[in-house]
Amino acid sequence: MKRIGIITSGGDCGGLNAVIKGAARMAASMGIEVVIIPNGYAGLYNLVDTETLVALTEERLVKIDATRAGSEAGHSRVKIKKIDAPDKYDRIKKGLEKFGIEGLVISGGDDTGSVMVDLGEQGIDCVHVPKTMDLDLQCYSVGGDSAINRVSQFMSDLRTTGMSHNRVLVLEVFGRYAGHTAFRGGIGADADCILLPEIPVNFDVVYAHMKEKFFSRVKTSDVKAGTYAIVAAEGMKDAKGEIIADESAGKDAFGHVKLAGAGKYVRKRLEGFMKEDPDVTGFMKDTGMLVTGVYEKPEIREVTPGHLVRSGHSYAYDVNFGMSAGAAGVALLAEGIKGVTVVKASGGEIFYQSTAEVIKQRHVDLAEVALFERLGICFGRKPEEYKPQIKAWTGKIERYM
Amino acid sequence: MKRIGIITSGGDCGGLNAVIKGAARMAASMGIEVVIIPNGYAGLYNLVDTETLVALTEERLVKIDATRAGSEAGHSRVKIKKIDAPDKYDRIKKGLEKFGIEGLVISGGDDTGSVMVDLGEQGIDCVHVPKTMDLDLQCYSVGGDSAINRVSQFMSDLRTTGMSHNRVLVLEVFGRYAGHTAFRGGIGADADCILLPEIPVNFDVVYAHMKEKFFSRVKTSDVKAGTYAIVAAEGMKDAKGEIIADESAGKDAFGHVKLAGAGKYVRKRLEGFMKEDPDVTGFMKDTGMLVTGVYEKPEIREVTPGHLVRSGHSYAYDVNFGMSAGAAGVALLAEGIKGVTVVKASGGEIFYQSTAEVIKQRHVDLAEVALFERLGICFGRKPEEYKPQIKAWTGKIERYM
Amino acid sequence: MKRIGIITSGGDCGGLNAVIKGAARMAASMGIEVVIIPNGYAGLYNLVDTETLVALTEERLVKIDATRAGSEAGHSRVKIKKIDAPDKYDRIKKGLEKFGIEGLVISGGDDTGSVMVDLGEQGIDCVHVPKTMDLDLQCYSVGGDSAINRVSQFMSDLRTTGMSHNRVLVLEVFGRYAGHTAFRGGIGADADCILLPEIPVNFDVVYAHMKEKFFSRVKTSDVKAGTYAIVAAEGMKDAKGEIIADESAGKDAFGHVKLAGAGKYVRKRLEGFMKEDPDVTGFMKDTGMLVTGVYEKPEIREVTPGHLVRSGHSYAYDVNFGMSAGAAGVALLAEGIKGVTVVKASGGEIFYQSTAEVIKQRHVDLAEVALFERLGICFGRKPEEYKPQIKAWTGKIERYM
Amino acid sequence: MKRIGIITSGGDCGGLNAVIKGAARMAASMGIEVVIIPNGYAGLYNLVDTETLVALTEERLVKIDATRAGSEAGHSRVKIKKIDAPDKYDRIKKGLEKFGIEGLVISGGDDTGSVMVDLGEQGIDCVHVPKTMDLDLQCYSVGGDSAINRVSQFMSDLRTTGMSHNRVLVLEVFGRYAGHTAFRGGIGADADCILLPEIPVNFDVVYAHMKEKFFSRVKTSDVKAGTYAIVAAEGMKDAKGEIIADESAGKDAFGHVKLAGAGKYVRKRLEGFMKEDPDVTGFMKDTGMLVTGVYEKPEIREVTPGHLVRSGHSYAYDVNFGMSAGAAGVALLAEGIKGVTVVKASGGEIFYQSTAEVIKQRHVDLAEVALFERLGICFGRKPEEYKPQIKAWTGKIERYM
Repeated sequence: MKRIGIITSGGDCGGLNAVIKGAARMAASMGIEVVIIPNGYAGLYNLVDTETLVALTEERLVKIDATRAGSEAGHSRVKIKKIDAPDKYDRIKKGLEKFGIEGLVISGGDDTGSVMVDLGEQGIDCVHVPKTMDLDLQCYSVGGDSAINRVSQFMSDLRTTGMSHNRVLVLEVFGRYAGHTAFRGGIGADADCILLPEIPVNFDVVYAHMKEKFFSRVKTSDVKAGTYAIVAAEGMKDAKGEIIADESAGKDAFGHVKLAGAGKYVRKRLEGFMKEDPDVTGFMKDTGMLVTGVYEKPEIREVTPGHLVRSGHSYAYDVNFGMSAGAAGVALLAEGIKGVTVVKASGGEIFYQSTAEVIKQRHVDLAEVALFERLGICFGRKPEEYKPQIKAWTGKIERYM
Repeated sequence: MKRIGIITSGGDCGGLNAVIKGAARMAASMGIEVVIIPNGYAGLYNLVDTETLVALTEERLVKIDATRAGSEAGHSRVKIKKIDAPDKYDRIKKGLEKFGIEGLVISGGDDTGSVMVDLGEQGIDCVHVPKTMDLDLQCYSVGGDSAINRVSQFMSDLRTTGMSHNRVLVLEVFGRYAGHTAFRGGIGADADCILLPEIPVNFDVVYAHMKEKFFSRVKTSDVKAGTYAIVAAEGMKDAKGEIIADESAGKDAFGHVKLAGAGKYVRKRLEGFMKEDPDVTGFMKDTGMLVTGVYEKPEIREVTPGHLVRSGHSYAYDVNFGMSAGAAGVALLAEGIKGVTVVKASGGEIFYQSTAEVIKQRHVDLAEVALFERLGICFGRKPEEYKPQIKAWTGKIERYM
Repeated sequence: MKRIGIITSGGDCGGLNAVIKGAARMAASMGIEVVIIPNGYAGLYNLVDTETLVALTEERLVKIDATRAGSEAGHSRVKIKKIDAPDKYDRIKKGLEKFGIEGLVISGGDDTGSVMVDLGEQGIDCVHVPKTMDLDLQCYSVGGDSAINRVSQFMSDLRTTGMSHNRVLVLEVFGRYAGHTAFRGGIGADADCILLPEIPVNFDVVYAHMKEKFFSRVKTSDVKAGTYAIVAAEGMKDAKGEIIADESAGKDAFGHVKLAGAGKYVRKRLEGFMKEDPDVTGFMKDTGMLVTGVYEKPEIREVTPGHLVRSGHSYAYDVNFGMSAGAAGVALLAEGIKGVTVVKASGGEIFYQSTAEVIKQRHVDLAEVALFERLGICFGRKPEEYKPQIKAWTGKIERYM
Repeated sequence: MKRIGIITSGGDCGGLNAVIKGAARMAASMGIEVVIIPNGYAGLYNLVDTETLVALTEERLVKIDATRAGSEAGHSRVKIKKIDAPDKYDRIKKGLEKFGIEGLVISGGDDTGSVMVDLGEQGIDCVHVPKTMDLDLQCYSVGGDSAINRVSQFMSDLRTTGMSHNRVLVLEVFGRYAGHTAFRGGIGADADCILLPEIPVNFDVVYAHMKEKFFSRVKTSDVKAGTYAIVAAEGMKDAKGEIIADESAGKDAFGHVKLAGAGKYVRKRLEGFMKEDPDVTGFMKDTGMLVTGVYEKPEIREVTPGHLVRSGHSYAYDVNFGMSAGAAGVALLAEGIKGVTVVKASGGEIFYQSTAEVIKQRHVDLAEVALFERLGICFGRKPEEYKPQIKAWTGKIERYM
C-alpha cells in the first residue's frame, strides 16, 4: 500500500483533526502516504476532476491544530446513494486510480458509515473511524465528549441569567434520534430537566416538577432568586411520540426532515401551564415580584446554541480517542482488514467491528435515566423505579483512558 | 445616611456583582448599610409588603462572586411608568420608609435611568450606575466588555464549522438600536462583515463582498476550505431602513417590538443572491464541491446565541469598572449628589453627569466604521472614504484602566 | 439508616461537588439525611468537639455548583495513622455517635482509601468513592478528566508563546508515581514529548527528537517559526530511575518527599545539550536568528501551572461520573455493603470492588505508549515496537458514557 | 512607498496578530506591500542574509488568526545596542535595501521603543505600535487587556482550591517595574490582597489583613470553608524597597536581573507570621481543623502561571485596539510621520506622540489604589485616605471603545 485517502463526512465536531493526524502519522511510520480528499464525499465524487491533493507530510501536519474542532479535510452532507448518475462508482474509482489511492479512512457517523458499506461493495477498500457528536453509534464516536462539554458549559453559563431574572431556561441542543448529548451535557451542568427523543414528554410531569423545584428555590432564597434549567434535544417527542418538526423547512441533503423549535415548544407549553395555574399569582406575590398588569408570571427563555455546540475546541478525550482511532484505521487497512469500524485502540490491542453492526442506532439507556430520576432530575415522564443490581466487579476494570 | 438600597434593573450582564460589592464595601467604610432590593423595580414596588431584606455584610458578600455574570440583586423588566396605580410612588416611598432606606444605587441602562429620573422627581434620592451590554449610553456601561468578548469568542469558535463545511456563518447578537456589541465583538473576532442598526443594509454590497472574499479563500486553499463570517445586530435594518421585526411576537414589558430573525433574514437574502448568481456553479465545480442535484450551492448557517452573550463570566474590565462605579455611586449619595450617573471613578476623582444627559442614545461612530471598511471589512454599504485627521497628542493620555 | 456523613479527602479536583450532590440526593430519596463532615479527616477527628453540621437539604444543595471544581465538604491532608493518640478511633466513634452518623461516604485517592480501610477495621461503616486527578487507581477516579482537559488547554495555549519566540516549552504537571495526567493531557494537546514516572528519561533520545522536529519546523516555516512542546510529570525519573526531588523542601503530611523541578530539570538538561551541539549555531544562522553574543541558542521555558490544573471547572465527564458514583456509594451503604469502592454505576447496575484492591497503583500502559511512539511522539526512551493485536470485537461494547 | 516591513519585538502577548493584520490591510488599501521581518530585531539584523520574506497578501493573512495570542512575525529579545559590531546599522540598512523596505512598523514595549529611536537616528523610518502586557507605557499597549483577563481567570479558578483546603493562595504574575497587570487582574478576580512594585510591602499589614479576613470567613462559613487570595507582581519590593531577585539566575538579553520568587517569598513570610502567632492554634481548634502534630496551621500555596498569562487567546479589546493601531502605524508612515508611537486611532482621528515620550514608564496611580483600599483590599501598606474630588463631567465622555 502506497497511498491512502482520508475523508471526513457528515457534520463537523471535535476530534477530527486528531483522527487525521493519527492516520497520517501511522501511515508515515509504514511508508504510506496519506492525502486529504477534501469536502467529504463531494470531494471523493469529484476526485477525477481534481488537479492536486495535499499530502500530509510532517510539514503540512504541523499546520493542523488537533485541539481545534472541525476538520482540515472538510465536510459535506453529500450521500453517494442520492447521486443520480449510473456511472457514479466508476467515476469514484477513476478518481482514486488517478491519484493511486489504494484505500480510504473515512470518519463519520451512521450515514457516512452506510455510504462506506456501499463503497466497499463496489470494491473500494475503506475503514471507518466513528464520528458523531450524537454518540448514537454502538461504540464511542469522536466528537461526543466535546459536544457534551460544550452543552454543559452553555447550560451552566445560562444559570446567571436564570438566577438574575428568576427565569426558567431551556437549552435546545442537537440530537435527532438519540439524546446522549442532551443527557450527558445536561447532567454535566446539573440541569433540572432533560428531554430526550427516547421519552415522549408528559408536560404535566414537567410542569409539576418545575413548579415544585423552581418555586421553592425562589421562596427560600434570601434574595428571592432561583432558576430551573432544562436541556431539550431537538428530536424530543410530544406525548403522542411525534417529533417537533418544522414542516415548512424542507429536508436536508440526507433526506431528513428539518427539526426546529424543541426549545420554543417547551417554552410555549410551560407558559401555557403557568397561564392556567392559579398558584402562579400567589407565588409572584409571595416572592415580591408581582406587579399586576406588568409582571404576572415568571419568564421562560429558550436558547439554541446550534453549531456552537460542535465548534471551537476539541476536548482532551476526543483528541486522545481520535488520534488512536485514526492510527488504528490505517493499521487495519494496511493489514487488509476492510469494511469495518475501529471500535477502539488501547494498550496493545486494536478492536474493530463490522460497520453495519456499529452504525446501528444506540439510544439512551433508560435504566440509567432511572438512576438520575432517583436523584430528582425530571426526564418528562413519571420517574420509573431504579432497582440497581449491585455486583462485585471481578477482573480488569474497563475504564476511561 | 444609615441605609442604602441597591437595585439592578433591565437585562442581566457581566459586572453587576462587582457594582454590588463596590457599593456595599464603600458604604461599609462609611458606616452605612447596604441592603438588596430584590428583582429590580418589581422588588422596589413591593417593598412595603416585603418582610425582610438582606444586608450586605462581609459574611454575605463573600457568597457573591464578582467574576460571575448576572446580579445577586436580581432583575425584572418592570417600568414604574407602566404601572397603572395612582398611589404607586406613595407605595414605593412607604416601602423605603419601612426599611429606613434613605437612598438608592440603581444600576441599569436607558430605561432604568429614565425610571430613576421619575423617582428623583418624586423625592427619592437615587444615583445611577450605568449598565447595558448594548453600550449605547454616553459613558461606558458595565456589561459591555463581557458581551463583546463573548460575541468574539462565539464567532471565532464558529469558524471551525465554517472552515469544515465551507459555509458562510451569520452570528446574530443583541443590539436593538445601537450596534456597539456587534461592531466590537465582530472586530474582536476578525469578522468579514458586520451589520449594524446604524447602517441600512445594501445586500448587493454584502453579496459582492462575500463572493469575492469567500470564493477566493476556498479556491486558494490547498484543501479547498474557506469561510466568511458575518456578525449581525438584531436591530439591523433593511435597505429601506426598517428593522427586521417579528410582528407576531408582540411587545415586551417596556413596550418594545420583539425583534427576531436578523440572522435568518441575512441567510435568506444571501441564499437568494446565490440562487440567482450563475457564477456559483462554476465556483462549486472549480473547487470540487459540485454534485448536481445534491450539493449545488455553498451553505449558509445562522446562529443566535441569545442570552449566552450576557451570561456566564464577567470579564476583568467589567469587574474593575463595576466595582469602582458602584463605590462611586455610594460616595455621591453620601455627599448628597443625586439624580446623576457615575461616569467614572479613576485616580482620585469621581465624575458624574446628569442621568438625563447620559442616557441619550449613543450610536456607533461612522467615521470609525470607515477605518475598518478601509481594512476590508464590509458594513453593508459601499465603503466610505476614510480620511483620518492625524494629530499629535498633547497632555495626559486618556487610557484604558 | 438515618444519617450518613460525607467526607472528601486528599487533594481537591474536579467532580467532587457532583459526588456530594449525588450522594445527598440518593440518600434523600431513601429518607436518609446526609451531613457534611468538613475538612476531610481533620473534621472527622474533631467531630466530637464540633457544634453543628450542615445537612444537605435541597435548599442547601442548590448553593453547591456541580460544575465548579473543589469540594464543598473541604479537604485536608490529615492521615489518621499519623495521629499519635491512642484513643483516636474512640474519639472518631464518639464524634459519629454524637451526631448519629451511621455510615460514611468518603471520596479520595489511595491514601484516603487506605485510611478508610483502617476505619472499617475499627467498625466504622464506610464506602469509598474513587477520586484522584492522578488516575492511578484501578478504576476511574473523579477529577481525572478535568485535570487532563486543563493540562491540554494549558499546553495548547503555550504554543502561542512557543511559536512567537521559537522556544521549546516544558509544562510540568502533577503526577508523582503515575503519569496518566501528563500522558493523556499531553496527547490531548498534541505534545511532542511526554515524560512520565513510568519511563526513566534518556535525554539523548529527547534531545535528538527535539532537534529533528523543532529545527525542521523552524526551517520549513515561511516565517521561520516553530516550537516543541514537552509535558513532564513532576515524578519523572532520570536515567538512573531516580525522581527529581527537592530535598530541601521536606515532606508533606502524608510523608511524601516534596517533588520539585521536573520542568526546570528538563530545561537545564536540554540547554546543556544545546550548548554542546555544534549544529545549533548553524541552525540559528540558517533561520536568521543568530546574533553573536546576544542570541546564540533557542530558548527553553518551563511553566508549572500547579494547582491551576486541579482548580476552576469540573468537566462534564467528572460531573456525570461523580454524581452517579456518589449516589452509588449511598446505595451500597444502605444495602450494608461496606469497605468497598464504587467502580461504576451505569445502566441498572452498580459495581464495586474491595477498596484494598482498587487502590493498588495503576501505571500508564507501556503498550499504549508504544502506539503513540509509533505516531512520532517521544516518551524519553528509544521507541519500542508497536505490534498491536488486531481483534474483532464481539458482544456489547464497553464505552464512554 | 512601495514596501513596509513589520516587526514584533520583546515579549509575546495578545493582540499582536491584529496589529499585523491591521497594518497589512491598511497598506494594501494604499497599494503598499507589507512583509514580515521574522523574529524581531534578530531578523532585522540578519535581513541582509535572508533569502525570502513573506508578503502579507490576502491569501497569507487568512492563515493568521487575530484571536490567537502571540505573533506570526515572531519575537526575540535582541536589543540592537547590545550588538557589538561597528557596522551593525549599515548591515541593517543593507538588509532593508536588499528587499526594498522603505519603512518599518515596529510593535513592542519600552525596550523596543528605545531601539526604534536608535534606528530613527540612523535614518531608518519607523513607527511604533505600543505593545506590552505590563501596560507601563504612557498610552494603552496591546496585550494588556488579555493579560489582565487571564490573571483574573487564574486567580478566580484557584479559589476552588483555596476554598476546599482553607488555603491562602498567592498568584505570582509578570510585572517587573509596574504593577498594572497584577492590580487590574487582581481587582478583576476580586482578590483580597495585591502586591505591586510601586508599594514596598509591609508584611505586618498583610498578615493582619489576612488574619482578619481569612479567619472570619472560615469561622462564619457553615461548612468551615474560606480562602484568601493574593496577587503578587514579580517585581514587588520588600519593606526596604528592594526587589525579590534571584541573584543566581543571571541576567536576560536586555541586561535585566532575573526576578524570581515573589510568590514563594510571600508564602514564606506569611508562614513565618503564622508560626509566631499564638492565635493560629485557637483558630484551627475553633474551626475543627486542628490535629496536633499533623495539621496545625493553615496552608499557603503559591502558583506561578508564567507564560500562561501571555499566551493562548487575544481578548476583544486587544484585537480592536491592535487592528486599528497597526493600521494607524502604516497611515503615519505613509504620511511621512516617523519616530512616533501610535497613541490611538478612533473615530476619524489618529493620534501619535513621540516615542521617547510614550515609553516613559507609567506606574500604578496610588490615588486609585486608595479607592480600592477603601473597599477593603490590602495593598501591603496601611491604607491611605481616599478623598475623591467629585466633579461634574462636561463635554464628550472619553470612553472605552
